[in-house]
Amino acid sequence: MAYRNERLPREKVFRDPVHNYIYIQHRVILDLINTKEFQRLRRIKQLGTASMVFHGAEHTRFTHSLGVYEITRRICDNFQRNYPTQTPGDGLWDDSERLVALCAALLHDIGHGPYSHTFEHIFKTNHEAITANILTSPETEVNAVLRAVSPEFPQQVASVIEKTYPNPQVVQMISSQIDADRMDYLLRDAYHTGTKYGTFDLTRILRVMRPYHDGIAFEMNGMHAVEDYIVSRFQMYQQIYFHPVSRAMEVILSHLLERAREVYEGPVKTTEIAAPYLLFPFFRHEFDLADYLLLDDGTLTTYFAHWRAANDPILSDLAHRFLDRKPLKSVQYDEQTEPLIAHLRQLIGKAGFNVDFYTATNNSYDLPYDAYDPEMKKSLTQVELMQDDGHLVELSSVSALVNAITGKFSGDQRFFFPKEMLSKQSETVELFDPIYHEFQRYLHNDQLIQPQGD
Amino acid sequence: MAYRNERLPREKVFRDPVHNYIYIQHRVILDLINTKEFQRLRRIKQLGTASMVFHGAEHTRFTHSLGVYEITRRICDNFQRNYPTQTPGDGLWDDSERLVALCAALLHDIGHGPYSHTFEHIFKTNHEAITANILTSPETEVNAVLRAVSPEFPQQVASVIEKTYPNPQVVQMISSQIDADRMDYLLRDAYHTGTKYGTFDLTRILRVMRPYHDGIAFEMNGMHAVEDYIVSRFQMYQQIYFHPVSRAMEVILSHLLERAREVYEGPVKTTEIAAPYLLFPFFRHEFDLADYLLLDDGTLTTYFAHWRAANDPILSDLAHRFLDRKPLKSVQYDEQTEPLIAHLRQLIGKAGFNVDFYTATNNSYDLPYDAYDPEMKKSLTQVELMQDDGHLVELSSVSALVNAITGKFSGDQRFFFPKEMLSKQSETVELFDPIYHEFQRYLHNDQLIQPQGD
Amino acid sequence: MAYRNERLPREKVFRDPVHNYIYIQHRVILDLINTKEFQRLRRIKQLGTASMVFHGAEHTRFTHSLGVYEITRRICDNFQRNYPTQTPGDGLWDDSERLVALCAALLHDIGHGPYSHTFEHIFKTNHEAITANILTSPETEVNAVLRAVSPEFPQQVASVIEKTYPNPQVVQMISSQIDADRMDYLLRDAYHTGTKYGTFDLTRILRVMRPYHDGIAFEMNGMHAVEDYIVSRFQMYQQIYFHPVSRAMEVILSHLLERAREVYEGPVKTTEIAAPYLLFPFFRHEFDLADYLLLDDGTLTTYFAHWRAANDPILSDLAHRFLDRKPLKSVQYDEQTEPLIAHLRQLIGKAGFNVDFYTATNNSYDLPYDAYDPEMKKSLTQVELMQDDGHLVELSSVSALVNAITGKFSGDQRFFFPKEMLSKQSETVELFDPIYHEFQRYLHNDQLIQPQGD
Amino acid sequence: MAYRNERLPREKVFRDPVHNYIYIQHRVILDLINTKEFQRLRRIKQLGTASMVFHGAEHTRFTHSLGVYEITRRICDNFQRNYPTQTPGDGLWDDSERLVALCAALLHDIGHGPYSHTFEHIFKTNHEAITANILTSPETEVNAVLRAVSPEFPQQVASVIEKTYPNPQVVQMISSQIDADRMDYLLRDAYHTGTKYGTFDLTRILRVMRPYHDGIAFEMNGMHAVEDYIVSRFQMYQQIYFHPVSRAMEVILSHLLERAREVYEGPVKTTEIAAPYLLFPFFRHEFDLADYLLLDDGTLTTYFAHWRAANDPILSDLAHRFLDRKPLKSVQYDEQTEPLIAHLRQLIGKAGFNVDFYTATNNSYDLPYDAYDPEMKKSLTQVELMQDDGHLVELSSVSALVNAITGKFSGDQRFFFPKEMLSKQSETVELFDPIYHEFQRYLHNDQLIQPQGD
Repeated sequence: MAYRNERLPREKVFRDPVHNYIYIQHRVILDLINTKEFQRLRRIKQLGTASMVFHGAEHTRFTHSLGVYEITRRICDNFQRNYPTQTPGDGLWDDSERLVALCAALLHDIGHGPYSHTFEHIFKTNHEAITANILTSPETEVNAVLRAVSPEFPQQVASVIEKTYPNPQVVQMISSQIDADRMDYLLRDAYHTGTKYGTFDLTRILRVMRPYHDGIAFEMNGMHAVEDYIVSRFQMYQQIYFHPVSRAMEVILSHLLERAREVYEGPVKTTEIAAPYLLFPFFRHEFDLADYLLLDDGTLTTYFAHWRAANDPILSDLAHRFLDRKPLKSVQYDEQTEPLIAHLRQLIGKAGFNVDFYTATNNSYDLPYDAYDPEMKKSLTQVELMQDDGHLVELSSVSALVNAITGKFSGDQRFFFPKEMLSKQSETVELFDPIYHEFQRYLHNDQLIQPQGD
Repeated sequence: MAYRNERLPREKVFRDPVHNYIYIQHRVILDLINTKEFQRLRRIKQLGTASMVFHGAEHTRFTHSLGVYEITRRICDNFQRNYPTQTPGDGLWDDSERLVALCAALLHDIGHGPYSHTFEHIFKTNHEAITANILTSPETEVNAVLRAVSPEFPQQVASVIEKTYPNPQVVQMISSQIDADRMDYLLRDAYHTGTKYGTFDLTRILRVMRPYHDGIAFEMNGMHAVEDYIVSRFQMYQQIYFHPVSRAMEVILSHLLERAREVYEGPVKTTEIAAPYLLFPFFRHEFDLADYLLLDDGTLTTYFAHWRAANDPILSDLAHRFLDRKPLKSVQYDEQTEPLIAHLRQLIGKAGFNVDFYTATNNSYDLPYDAYDPEMKKSLTQVELMQDDGHLVELSSVSALVNAITGKFSGDQRFFFPKEMLSKQSETVELFDPIYHEFQRYLHNDQLIQPQGD
Repeated sequence: MAYRNERLPREKVFRDPVHNYIYIQHRVILDLINTKEFQRLRRIKQLGTASMVFHGAEHTRFTHSLGVYEITRRICDNFQRNYPTQTPGDGLWDDSERLVALCAALLHDIGHGPYSHTFEHIFKTNHEAITANILTSPETEVNAVLRAVSPEFPQQVASVIEKTYPNPQVVQMISSQIDADRMDYLLRDAYHTGTKYGTFDLTRILRVMRPYHDGIAFEMNGMHAVEDYIVSRFQMYQQIYFHPVSRAMEVILSHLLERAREVYEGPVKTTEIAAPYLLFPFFRHEFDLADYLLLDDGTLTTYFAHWRAANDPILSDLAHRFLDRKPLKSVQYDEQTEPLIAHLRQLIGKAGFNVDFYTATNNSYDLPYDAYDPEMKKSLTQVELMQDDGHLVELSSVSALVNAITGKFSGDQRFFFPKEMLSKQSETVELFDPIYHEFQRYLHNDQLIQPQGD
Repeated sequence: MAYRNERLPREKVFRDPVHNYIYIQHRVILDLINTKEFQRLRRIKQLGTASMVFHGAEHTRFTHSLGVYEITRRICDNFQRNYPTQTPGDGLWDDSERLVALCAALLHDIGHGPYSHTFEHIFKTNHEAITANILTSPETEVNAVLRAVSPEFPQQVASVIEKTYPNPQVVQMISSQIDADRMDYLLRDAYHTGTKYGTFDLTRILRVMRPYHDGIAFEMNGMHAVEDYIVSRFQMYQQIYFHPVSRAMEVILSHLLERAREVYEGPVKTTEIAAPYLLFPFFRHEFDLADYLLLDDGTLTTYFAHWRAANDPILSDLAHRFLDRKPLKSVQYDEQTEPLIAHLRQLIGKAGFNVDFYTATNNSYDLPYDAYDPEMKKSLTQVELMQDDGHLVELSSVSALVNAITGKFSGDQRFFFPKEMLSKQSETVELFDPIYHEFQRYLHNDQLIQPQGD
């Protein structure tokens, strides 16, 4: 039998806390899971620093990737049972697309590294490009498996992830407002953080999904389930993904990596144990795929543990703050109060902190939030409902709830600073006491304010 | 106010997927959580290699320790509300014991390192001794916090964990058949593996617990809840903790660490990046507390990643098998079939494997299973039910279900070997084909057998 | 000890699927549960006809009432632990209010009868007046229990339910946007229908509730939990409480009871078994409390079963449609299409149906929906958030999500008609076939429309 | 298309709290659900008096019947996907058996009446015979639907329920140790009572079920899931179904119905409203199917409500005790203490109670408990596990846990008596005070005892 069609003699199951079971039927899928590139995802946490706020969130990209695969498999099953294509071009589901969809689902995050968002930002890596690279480079085990299906198969799978694959149904399963990726991470992150905001009725959503010429639509009578999903996502961003303490830990991580690059820029003594040899290619922006695949959460934290004893006091202190969870504090600001930040930075500098490494501003826009917005250009952001007579109608035009949050700003802008600035009676730094007092006058109800009487 | 009694201005909560919320009321507890020794537990998985079988089980000893604390807190609340001591020696609950109980609960696992059971076995470390050490050594942050309560407090907390503390109620909260430790890990491991075997009615068990002179008893009308807990634990051991594949991965880990010790025994070139500097003290059995506290899961897997490229083929291969999850296969044997193992080892050797590093026998007794057994000497193993008139009766004497599994053997003995031995048509090793055929004759229905006709 | 303060020797618990356990500590509460008026609630379903759409929703007002009691008890516990009054008038919680709050919570629905909303509408009964009556009439067991607390206690409890009790904290526990009543029914109805829309984080909401001078506010950092509750309620109304089929069954019930009144208006032969003797006082609007307390779901359905064999064909047919679940069909209409209904009624009449008993219009406004609307006059509709500095801010002014749905129309208007009008090929009524065809031209995509070409 | 094979144009779903969704694909099934005999099950509670102990358990036989259907449907799906027959007699699954299996599953309880166990016992009705009757009598709507499939279909479905159908796979789906009926009621009763004892891993059990020549077996690797199910069932019986208070309410119900028969045996004045006309046929044991189908929980409780005001003091008092939930008290006894009961009855008589109607003994054997016992003759009691090589092995021979509880006595014998006998200071019956004192000497630790010193 062709490898492409080879079924396992007996369907294999993985016990999963979110989906109960994950069902593996194709030899190809099992072989992909067993590659070293995919197993490496066991060592990369899904939510990065968020686990320092929601301690249960220790799950990895490995489990998430299996979940995305499983949801995609269920979509294919539903499509094949209820909407099998009869004649080419009828807009229904062609089950010969199943394997490419499943592979793309399983591998869509294979290019992620440790603490991806921060790492990418500092070292200008790009997990999407790396994903494509892993799929199509002959040196990887993943590529070898895909190539065994057919020579062009690796590129096909990559094109699904890159959204250039010709069949929009397959693309939208993996990347759209309501795709297998988002559905899995909302449910899984909710499960592990222990919040209930992310729960929605997956079974019902799968039931009302249906293929059509231009992709995937939802039956009209499923509107409330879709609404519930959109609202759940909105709430997860507000509650989990934009949490100020999690962002504060990201600030520390980011500054820590920057500092390390500065410190290790010059020649390093080869005898130095603490030297982050595996990061050098990234410091110099001269890394290759093999370099990248050696990194995981443990590699980074092992360096951080070494750096805690480094000679550079900033490197050492930031490593300590990250590993031992000493987040920066923060306060909201807006356009009107933004100019006050310069003064606050001065005060922080006077208190003895290097303001480049101990302060930051960021807004939650930086995060990959994709609030439902049909006005945006990317076709991704449109959810189509199909009426009884087959006509489509865009979700926000019929849902008051979704309309209400469409395109709404939902994040916040924050200024981050050392917790020490809030100390009332600092014993060791008595001399600077007025600095702290002055600083604290600018904070009220979690807002940056212009103090009264100034 | 004395530090011992200092309450947080506002009770602090941590969102927890198992207990919903964990409530922190004492300054001491919050300070302990913020120590670097405790934060380190975030980097040590609770179930070690089991996460390679149950992929959801990626939770750490950090979350488990918080959970043990929370259950202990709830027990204290119940005891204080319903059974507060009136006169010394009345066998009821003295709430001045609360803080020592909470600290012991939180810190009971603080001495664990990465993959503890395997690591201890190879390097003769002892997590219980190290726990005591962390609590009582003046160099740790944990000790500093405890010492601030009172000079003898560190030793008191340590004695609870060592079961020498005078008040048996406090000791049994942390260590007994039905203690906060076991209750948390059963619930938490069940939650994360996604199995239902470990669930039992925690609320009801807490409700029927009550203090008495010699420790903690359970009200008679709670017998069924207690039964359910005992059976759940039995099932979790059979299903999760004794899983053959998880044990197979432990075998690989164990052999990998042993091989590394052999390889790096001699002088290492200081320029070798892959050299496991942090492990040297353990290879030489000359480690101190600081050495130990530098280790975590990430440290080990970082070395393993380096070793994958090592010159020693066994070291390299075992590192690959562990990181990329290539478990050994296994088969059950018993007293009668044990003698056959020697012959199988020979075949494995002929097939080209070093039998010391590629085979093993182990039985699930090796694991810390503590089936309910009132005949055992340790007082721990007795569950007492209190009747309406105050008399105690031992659980298995009234519960048919518990009686049935008391002292019963419930594990199995297995012989582990390379998966390659099961290959039918090995292309690369055609010459040895008869070896494989011969080997496979000894396996039937997951049992080692004497082949027919021999 | 005074009866008011009498505690049970041992706290009693009732196992509850929603709250896990319900805790009874006061003798008064246990005695109230054991009254015949309260036990009667076991025979009155909480959701009436909705159980004919969501078959799991078979729970009764008894379980709901216990749930409201339990949530109120938890609120009191939280208030007493965290906000106990220090000096009179400080706006904090006075725990001597606990008993009146608990009694009001437990008894708030005691005046409900079978299929309350429909029954009240037809017979002009008023469950709120009856509740007050049950509490204050010396003939009831409930009154006897309350009177034993103090002579004025029955009236005090009644005044909480009537919102005239002087302490607004107590009133708002039972009746406000976020009260124990709504919180219990959302969770419980979600649990039994099997939908997830009604779930929200009860523990967190309880945690952020706090008393102040004018009632109950919510801490600012609980805003998202409050948002989630408001959205959940919105969704439950849209999905469950306004479900068109459930409303269609209410239409049938309503018409059935009206028809029965007409049929049994004249003198009834005393020998007629099927005569609804217990309903006569209501047909004549001359009922007293004893008459009312004899009714429950079973009484009504027993009559319906008899009526199925009645001589009056409309009575008989409607009884059959109700008992055997043959809902009317329905279609949405709006201001523009409303004038078309007269024509449709004509067609239905021509098809042989009595339009008074086989058609209806209703809109979901008829139901007790109380979308969050701070503009409304009743003080109930305001949710206040308390900032760090103690100032209050109204919810919709800070929550984009709540603002979006505030005061929004969320129900629909529907025209109900016999399913037979949709039949395509009615064998028995061939002659009228053009009627059906004509009728169906007015329906499209669940909307009433002006047919094309007219 | 033949009615037998007619599919709904679009699969219909019912939202279910236990199975999430129930899927209806056949027109026949939908038509059966819509019959009046099936809709009547909405008015008959699944657990009878148990809802008076576990207040959440208000679900009906309607929801349970849907659940049994759904589990059967899933079993068929699994069998058809994994074990479709290839050649007649190969012992695999023939999907043309699906419809008869689904109908039998849906209708297996259609013959149940209100409070079946008690009602049957008093009036010598037999729900199994009535089930067969409903299926095969031409007067029922159910029969009309089944007949439309084929003339012999009603009898075929009946024979599945009666276990005489030739295909043992179909019979065992509905009636065996691990059948759809038991699996649904354990899960559903656990869900609604709020206990956790009844939960087990349905998905896994379905997955390891497989057809073979003589019925249904379970794969060896599913042994632990099967064990868990057996233990769960054991615990549900001990905790829920045998609960002493639930049995005490059954005693009252039973005596109430017996008393009513005595009271209404003679000629009844036709003008008496309270006369239980619908029960007369049963009092006289001259009922027909139509009489039976008029009864439901509401019919009975409506009579009870009338009887509360009856002239006969025992009838009136028992009706009050049942409706207003005043259970008898009870105590365990054994062979040794059984002789003491006569004396206790005497004391109860002296205290003014009619001992025939106010005392009872019963043991939990009376209930339909079917502990796993392979020694029993009925083939039902054997669970077969299939090994890798296809051989079968009986469950208790490999499971220590199941072996332990096989054939074990697990119920208890109880003597029931009026709660008044426990009163300490009865004001109204002072004269009899010594009676109570004497009575209470025989009770200790929930046991009947021979008092000390006698």
